[in-house]
Amino acid sequence: MLSKEYSDIKSAIKASPLEDGMTVSFHHHLRNGDYVLNMVMAAIADLGFKDLTVNASAFFACHKPLLDHISQGVVTGLECNYMDAGLGEEISRGLLKKPVIFRSHGGRPADLYRGAAHIDVAFIAASNADPAGNCNGWSGKSAFGSIGYAMADADMADYVIVISDQKSIYPLQQSSIDESLVDAVVFVDSIGDPEKIVSGTTRVTRDPIGLLMADLAVDAIAASGLLRDGFSFQTGAGGASLAVAQLLSDRMLAEGIQGSFASGGITGMLVDMLRAGLFRNLLDVQCFDRAAVESIAQDERHIEISASRYASPEAKSNVAQQLDVVILGATEIDLDFNVNVHTDSNGVIMGGSGGHSDTAAGSFMSMIIAPLYRARLPLIVDRVGCISTPGRDVDVLLTQYGLAVNPRRDDLRQPLQAAGLPVFEIAELKARAEAICGLPQPIKRKDRTVGIVRSRDGEILDRIYQLAD
Amino acid sequence: MLSKEYSDIKSAIKASPLEDGMTVSFHHHLRNGDYVLNMVMAAIADLGFKDLTVNASAFFACHKPLLDHISQGVVTGLECNYMDAGLGEEISRGLLKKPVIFRSHGGRPADLYRGAAHIDVAFIAASNADPAGNCNGWSGKSAFGSIGYAMADADMADYVIVISDQKSIYPLQQSSIDESLVDAVVFVDSIGDPEKIVSGTTRVTRDPIGLLMADLAVDAIAASGLLRDGFSFQTGAGGASLAVAQLLSDRMLAEGIQGSFASGGITGMLVDMLRAGLFRNLLDVQCFDRAAVESIAQDERHIEISASRYASPEAKSNVAQQLDVVILGATEIDLDFNVNVHTDSNGVIMGGSGGHSDTAAGSFMSMIIAPLYRARLPLIVDRVGCISTPGRDVDVLLTQYGLAVNPRRDDLRQPLQAAGLPVFEIAELKARAEAICGLPQPIKRKDRTVGIVRSRDGEILDRIYQLAD
Repeated sequence: MLSKEYSDIKSAIKASPLEDGMTVSFHHHLRNGDYVLNMVMAAIADLGFKDLTVNASAFFACHKPLLDHISQGVVTGLECNYMDAGLGEEISRGLLKKPVIFRSHGGRPADLYRGAAHIDVAFIAASNADPAGNCNGWSGKSAFGSIGYAMADADMADYVIVISDQKSIYPLQQSSIDESLVDAVVFVDSIGDPEKIVSGTTRVTRDPIGLLMADLAVDAIAASGLLRDGFSFQTGAGGASLAVAQLLSDRMLAEGIQGSFASGGITGMLVDMLRAGLFRNLLDVQCFDRAAVESIAQDERHIEISASRYASPEAKSNVAQQLDVVILGATEIDLDFNVNVHTDSNGVIMGGSGGHSDTAAGSFMSMIIAPLYRARLPLIVDRVGCISTPGRDVDVLLTQYGLAVNPRRDDLRQPLQAAGLPVFEIAELKARAEAICGLPQPIKRKDRTVGIVRSRDGEILDRIYQLAD
Repeated sequence: MLSKEYSDIKSAIKASPLEDGMTVSFHHHLRNGDYVLNMVMAAIADLGFKDLTVNASAFFACHKPLLDHISQGVVTGLECNYMDAGLGEEISRGLLKKPVIFRSHGGRPADLYRGAAHIDVAFIAASNADPAGNCNGWSGKSAFGSIGYAMADADMADYVIVISDQKSIYPLQQSSIDESLVDAVVFVDSIGDPEKIVSGTTRVTRDPIGLLMADLAVDAIAASGLLRDGFSFQTGAGGASLAVAQLLSDRMLAEGIQGSFASGGITGMLVDMLRAGLFRNLLDVQCFDRAAVESIAQDERHIEISASRYASPEAKSNVAQQLDVVILGATEIDLDFNVNVHTDSNGVIMGGSGGHSDTAAGSFMSMIIAPLYRARLPLIVDRVGCISTPGRDVDVLLTQYGLAVNPRRDDLRQPLQAAGLPVFEIAELKARAEAICGLPQPIKRKDRTVGIVRSRDGEILDRIYQLAD
C-alpha cells in the first residue's frame, strides 16, 4: 500500500521541491477560521526559505502573521482574489515591495490553465483525506464544504501537499480532489475553526435602507421578465443581498415559480430555497455558513463545483454564463458603470473581485446594489479609485433613490421603465448624492503601485497606489 | 442560457476545428454495443475528410465499418489500448499503411498528459447530458456505467463533442465530465445497445481446468499472506478470472476477511462481493455488465474513477499501485516472464494491453493464469510474439500443472513453496508442455511493422509484424 504521508508539515516541505523564490498556494474555504496558511508559512519561515510568493484565493484577517513573514523577507510576493482590510491596510501603506496581483475567482484558474500563473507547491486544507491524498472538504470534524477553489491548484501545481485533520482508510469514498493529483499528505491536529468560516455578513439586514433596496431589487428582477420557471440567480452573503434572496423567496413561493439554480458562495438562505423547491440545484464553489456545509454533505441537489467550472473564461463554459441575475455590491461606481470592490473611499485595500467581475460578465443581468452614500461619501464618482469590474459588464445600479441602467442595456431599461420603476440616468443619481454630501475630497496617494488588478482575461485592468503618508 | 447544442453530428463536426490529418478520439465503454464511433465516422466520411487518425481506448467487432474508412483513405491512423480480432485480422494482414499505436489504459492518459499524444476533436458518448455538456454514463436509457476512459480526452482534447441520447435540463445533477471541458453537444436517437456492453466472457468458467486453476490461485493468494483484512484485488471478466473471484469470495466469507477494494473493470461478481461486505469499495473505470452499471448508479461505495487515477504512471499515484493482487491472462509467456496479450499464437492481433501492463507494474503480486497449452499450442515460449507486459512486472505464472515464480520475487516464491504449492521453474513447465504438444511452428511474418506497442512509460516496448501471405 503506497502512502504519501509525512509526519509533520516541515518534513513534507523538506521532501517537496520548494526553493527560495518559488510560489506556494492556498485556498480560503476556511475563511477567517483557517489555521493551515499560518502553520505552513511558520514552518517555511523556520526552515529558512526566502523570497516566496504566496498565491491564495483569498487572505483574511486571521492571516496577519503574513505581515511578519513579509517584514522578514520570507514572503516578497502576494497574489489573491480578495484581501481583507487587516492585511490590505498594511499593503496599501507600502509594506510589500512588489505589487500584489489581484485576480477574480474565475481569472485565477484561468491564469493557471493558460500558463500566466504558476504554482510550485500547493498546500490544500482538507477536512478528510486518506494517506494517498484522496480528500474532500465536506466531511470530518472541520468540514467547510466545497473545496472548489483548490481544484485548479491540485490540477496545475507542480507539487501538491494535502493537509488534513481527519485520516480515513484508503480509499476515501468520496474525493473532491483525488490521489492522481496529490504528492504528499500531512495529518495535523486541526486545520481550522469551522465556526469561523461564516462570513461576517450572513444575516439579513435590518437596516431600513437595505430593506427598501432589496424590495426595489425584487421588483426590478420581476420587471425584467427573468423571474419565471427556470430562473437562475446568484447573490453574496452581504446583509442587503440576503434581504434580496429573502424577498425573492417570498415572491417565488407566492407566484409558484420554480427556479433552476443558485450559484456561487452558498448560504443557509439559498439552502432553504433549495429545500422549498424554489431552486432545483445549488452550484457551490464555497460554503458561507454551517447550513450550507451541512447541506452539501447530505443533499445531492447541492453540487460542488470547481472555480474553473464556476467562472473561468478559459473553461469551455462556466456557470456564471448560465446565470440570469447576479446581485453584487460596490464601494464605488462611476459614470461609465465601472465598479470598485478593491479599495474603500480612502483608497485602502479592503476586498477584491472574488466572483464579482466574473458573474457580472457572465450573467444576463448584473445588478449592483448599494446605498447612494455611506458616511457622507457618495457611491457614484467620476472615476472609481480602482476598476474591479469594467462598466461594460455592469447592467443595473440600484440605490435607495432609484435605478440606473447601463446605456448598453436598453433591452433592460425598457421593461424596468415600463413597470413604473424609478429609473434615472446615473449622472442624475450622482448629482443627487452630491447635493446631499457635497463633493468628496480627492484621495491623496503616491505614484507607487501596490496592487495590480488583472482582468479575468489576463489583461491589466487597473492599478492600486500606495497611500500618501 | 448558453447552449452548445447542435441539431446533428454533421453540424457539430462542421462547427469544430476538424481538418484533414487530425486526430479524433472515442472511448469504449459501450463496447460491442457502441453506435457512436460508427455514426461519427460515417458523418466524417460523408463530409469528405481524409487522412484522420482515430484514437479510441478500444476497438470492438462492431467497429468494422472502420475498415471501409481505411480503404477509402478517410482513416490512415489508428491508436488504441485494445483491438478485437474483427479489426485485428485485417490490420495484421497489412490493411493500414501506418502501424497501429497500442497503449495501455494507463499509458493512454499518460501520453495525453505528457504531450506525447494529442487529440484534436474528442467524441464522448454519454448516456445523459445537458445542453451545456455536463454528462455522465450511468444514468439514462443507454447507461453504461463508468465513463472513466473518456475523462482524459475531455481534459486534454482541443475540442470536445458530447453525444448523448438523453437530454436533461441544465444543470445535470451529477456530471462525471462537466461543462467546463465541453465545446458542443449533440442529442441522437440512440448511442448504443447497452445490452451488448457485456463482455463476451463474464460467466464463471465450467471448464474443469479453469476451475482447477482458480482453486490453485486462491491457495496461492492465501499462501502469499496478502489475503487479510484490507486486501485489495483486481481481476478481469474472463471465465477463469471470475472463477477466482467466486472462490476468493467463498474463502473470504468463511474466514471473515474484509477486503479494502476491488478495481478495474467491474463485474456483477465484484458487486456481489461489495454487497456481502467483502470489499469496502469498488473503484470502477469500466462496467463489464448490467449489474455493475446498476450498482455504480445506486451505491456510493461503488466509485467511478478516471483512467488516469486508475493506472496512469503520470498520475501522482494511481489505484493500480495500491493493489495487493491482480489476476491477468496471457496468450503467451516466455522464459523471462514477458507476456503477450496482443496477438494469438499465429501472430494475429486479437487484443491489447488494456490495464494488463499497468496493474502488473503497480500491484504487489501480479499473477498470470492460463492453461499450459491451448489447441496443442504451448503457452510458454522462448520469446513471446509480442511483449505486452515486460517480464519484470510479472510475478507469478499459474497453470493447471503448477506455478512458476519470477526469480525477481523470491519473497513470493518462499511462502508459496512453504505452503506446499506446486512451484516449478518456468523452464520446467515449458518442457512439460512441449513434451505433450511438441514444439510450435515458428510464425511466418513479413518485416513490415503493423503495430507498435508503447509502454506505459512512453517507450517502444515491441512491434507487431504483418502476417506472411
